[in-house]
Amino acid sequence: MSKTAAGRFFEDYQPGQVIRHAVPRTVTLGERALYHALYPARHALASSDAFARACGLPASPLDDLAAFHVVFGKTVPDVSLNAVANLGYAEGRWLKPVWPGDTLRSESEVIGVKENSNGKSGVVWVRTRGLNQNDEPVLEYVRWVMVRKGNLSAPAPETVIPDLAKAVDPSALVIPDGLDFSGYDFGLAGEPHRWGDYEVGETIDHVDGVTIEEAEHMMATRLWQNTAKVHFDATYRPDGKRLIYGGHVISMARALSFNGLANAQLIVGLNGGAHANPCFAGDTVRAWSEVLDKAETPAPGVGAIRLRLVATTGAPFVLKGDDGKYLPEVLLDLDYWALMPV
Amino acid sequence: MSKTAAGRFFEDYQPGQVIRHAVPRTVTLGERALYHALYPARHALASSDAFARACGLPASPLDDLAAFHVVFGKTVPDVSLNAVANLGYAEGRWLKPVWPGDTLRSESEVIGVKENSNGKSGVVWVRTRGLNQNDEPVLEYVRWVMVRKGNLSAPAPETVIPDLAKAVDPSALVIPDGLDFSGYDFGLAGEPHRWGDYEVGETIDHVDGVTIEEAEHMMATRLWQNTAKVHFDATYRPDGKRLIYGGHVISMARALSFNGLANAQLIVGLNGGAHANPCFAGDTVRAWSEVLDKAETPAPGVGAIRLRLVATTGAPFVLKGDDGKYLPEVLLDLDYWALMPV
Amino acid sequence: MSKTAAGRFFEDYQPGQVIRHAVPRTVTLGERALYHALYPARHALASSDAFARACGLPASPLDDLAAFHVVFGKTVPDVSLNAVANLGYAEGRWLKPVWPGDTLRSESEVIGVKENSNGKSGVVWVRTRGLNQNDEPVLEYVRWVMVRKGNLSAPAPETVIPDLAKAVDPSALVIPDGLDFSGYDFGLAGEPHRWGDYEVGETIDHVDGVTIEEAEHMMATRLWQNTAKVHFDATYRPDGKRLIYGGHVISMARALSFNGLANAQLIVGLNGGAHANPCFAGDTVRAWSEVLDKAETPAPGVGAIRLRLVATTGAPFVLKGDDGKYLPEVLLDLDYWALMPV
Repeated sequence: MSKTAAGRFFEDYQPGQVIRHAVPRTVTLGERALYHALYPARHALASSDAFARACGLPASPLDDLAAFHVVFGKTVPDVSLNAVANLGYAEGRWLKPVWPGDTLRSESEVIGVKENSNGKSGVVWVRTRGLNQNDEPVLEYVRWVMVRKGNLSAPAPETVIPDLAKAVDPSALVIPDGLDFSGYDFGLAGEPHRWGDYEVGETIDHVDGVTIEEAEHMMATRLWQNTAKVHFDATYRPDGKRLIYGGHVISMARALSFNGLANAQLIVGLNGGAHANPCFAGDTVRAWSEVLDKAETPAPGVGAIRLRLVATTGAPFVLKGDDGKYLPEVLLDLDYWALMPV
Repeated sequence: MSKTAAGRFFEDYQPGQVIRHAVPRTVTLGERALYHALYPARHALASSDAFARACGLPASPLDDLAAFHVVFGKTVPDVSLNAVANLGYAEGRWLKPVWPGDTLRSESEVIGVKENSNGKSGVVWVRTRGLNQNDEPVLEYVRWVMVRKGNLSAPAPETVIPDLAKAVDPSALVIPDGLDFSGYDFGLAGEPHRWGDYEVGETIDHVDGVTIEEAEHMMATRLWQNTAKVHFDATYRPDGKRLIYGGHVISMARALSFNGLANAQLIVGLNGGAHANPCFAGDTVRAWSEVLDKAETPAPGVGAIRLRLVATTGAPFVLKGDDGKYLPEVLLDLDYWALMPV
Repeated sequence: MSKTAAGRFFEDYQPGQVIRHAVPRTVTLGERALYHALYPARHALASSDAFARACGLPASPLDDLAAFHVVFGKTVPDVSLNAVANLGYAEGRWLKPVWPGDTLRSESEVIGVKENSNGKSGVVWVRTRGLNQNDEPVLEYVRWVMVRKGNLSAPAPETVIPDLAKAVDPSALVIPDGLDFSGYDFGLAGEPHRWGDYEVGETIDHVDGVTIEEAEHMMATRLWQNTAKVHFDATYRPDGKRLIYGGHVISMARALSFNGLANAQLIVGLNGGAHANPCFAGDTVRAWSEVLDKAETPAPGVGAIRLRLVATTGAPFVLKGDDGKYLPEVLLDLDYWALMPV
């Protein structure tokens, strides 16, 4: 019997199945520092314990996306080792801040399957939940991927397509306990723009660009214990390129968005997202945002803002061609909710 | 109104103006470990809690230069985003060790302005102070930069040139509370040479060289939240090169200086410094030092030594040509005070 | 007198001599996070405090190999600065887990010398011991290196060749206090294979590969304060290549061995090892293992497994040619004992 795991194939997933992912991870101040070395992250709440305390939190939480990457990374051996494509995200919610010292693990429930008409692959939907050492959920999201069949003669399963929300309803967003932006220090945060200053439809060019290096995206991806070969092994693809983990692009774009969205302090919802084109070392990543929606929250001084975040190697504010397809320079089109002082 | 900050231009600075820089940063054991991964740092006091305790400190402080970089990094969006050149440093003093867990922020006072005769730019002098979470100053220094004018028709300001000391007077150096080198363990520190063994005028070739990589200088520069585009964006300069943050060269040279100056444990004064030529990935950085001065201190067993630290891609002990200009291989000429066991 | 250390030459070593190596190092959660960024490390015991507690330990220890690298790095300036080759390891034992916050230092005793017949170099055997802040040994191993003579006219010393064990006797392996695998969670650990499932002679292809970058191996090697020029200075070798620290290859291969040996949680013995061929940036490192031996231990639920770990840039399961020499694609042939749930 082979000791090496080959990963699951399409026919191995059934709706209702719960997969408990391996290798829990204690995240610490070390992960926090590395996050700031790997991305130009400057949002004050994840940078300063003093700033976080002035906003009602006990300390600076781990960056929301670092928590996402750790939870996501654990699912890779079970969900996407044989994936052909990462198709989408929906219904993502951050449920509790992750603090240095917390231990995270992940569980996924299969909520949908649909075999492709070619009979060689299919789409699998999973709802993944990240849990801390007290079994409290810290994050949940739905993700769907296209997975190869291992046994082409396996019968097609009954199609189950989950009914997913277009966007997380703002009333369902979870505000971290104690968060209070009523005494928010805009000077220390870096920009004067408050929730009320942003208008739906407004677009923001985040101006800065970062040229990506192999060593950096591999260090990041390893830190989240994401093991997909294609990120690390230059002999894996015929073109000799290492495909960069899509989450690296998400974190890079989010960090770049500080310049214009310095006060979008915490990510609390993930409405959707597409990794529009692959990213490779040598690409210079830029970012722009569009305000999609706004909502009030019950927390003092805290508003919610729904943002499209686009990572691109080209010019801002262009997304798709006349054919409705993403332009080749667009890397990421992400739709998320963040919290901002009103 | 644009949400993106364009940075200050020459006409935006007036003597007396105080700028409170954004994004405080809690530095931790994670930053400490990264400092040792990015630079070949081996000075025992910043390496070992046990060694630091034997020298009267409660624990190993964050490397002095890491503290400098964090304080400096915060000033970049306000002071040097539109800078043409970083011209000099003076009157730098480390006032209090920075401990893992401290939160640092920065403030700068404009202390001089002088418009250039071309009317397109000018020199701005600022005195920057780093403060911890208790508002205690941990570091101060003067820096001057050449900044572009944004509005060429803005009138030239009255010239104010600050009167700066050639070197920090040794009596003004601040010795960390409790520091005591009377029981100093030269064996554990790595070299037998004490303060008394160094002579003014003596030069030391630090022998080792490090070839610089893009991923490393970008990780370092991001960790200090220094956002200057030119360090990260390969499309920014016409030659496609990323200019390496001058502080990366300072830290590299200082770490290399262990070999010959292992007992110059703490930096306490910055008398001056010039980034003589730009550094790029692929350069192999070497370092040499010259003893410029020595002074006694009131702390038990502690002497002060004033050192010139030169980073170069060439041979040691050459600095300037017959024309009085730095040779092209010289990257850095730094003048600092360090503490050493007598 | 030159302030720069030239390192020891062959004639500077005498059997019985004890060298106390410089620069103690406090290792922290920062080192732990960096280890996981530099290597695809996923063994659960070094990843999760919660998992470690469920196995009877107070917390997740620093990876055994990180402890090894720190102890080893300290010996470089005294043992291998003028080494021509790193010839072998023997009688290695991990004696106590290293916890974040521990301060490590190293001592070596010279246990053998043998001048080569060419009169230009010789072999030196040292037994190195790593000690924590309480002077408790955490690790010991024998290593032998070929060292150049500094003074070719120095007389050849009397040959002393230590009598070294072919392998550490399993009864001499030290199990960490409290370790108990009787409630081991194979699901969280990532693989179902227990000690009883492995057979002597069995080989395992670990499948994954990692392409190595300059920035990564230099960050790792610096983090262990290993100062050998050849790893950092691209001008040092005539071919302009930086030789990768052999320990980097060890850690890479061990991390890759998760896939098939996820339950070989702790390394407790080092029986031998050869750095068969040099490794350079751009190489894609793969790994395979062979089960060499198995032994019971007195700890509850804990078995010992002796493994050959081979790092290669080629195909698995081939090691040496007809001439008995390592094939050029083989980088490492390591022989170690690990602990596994029975």
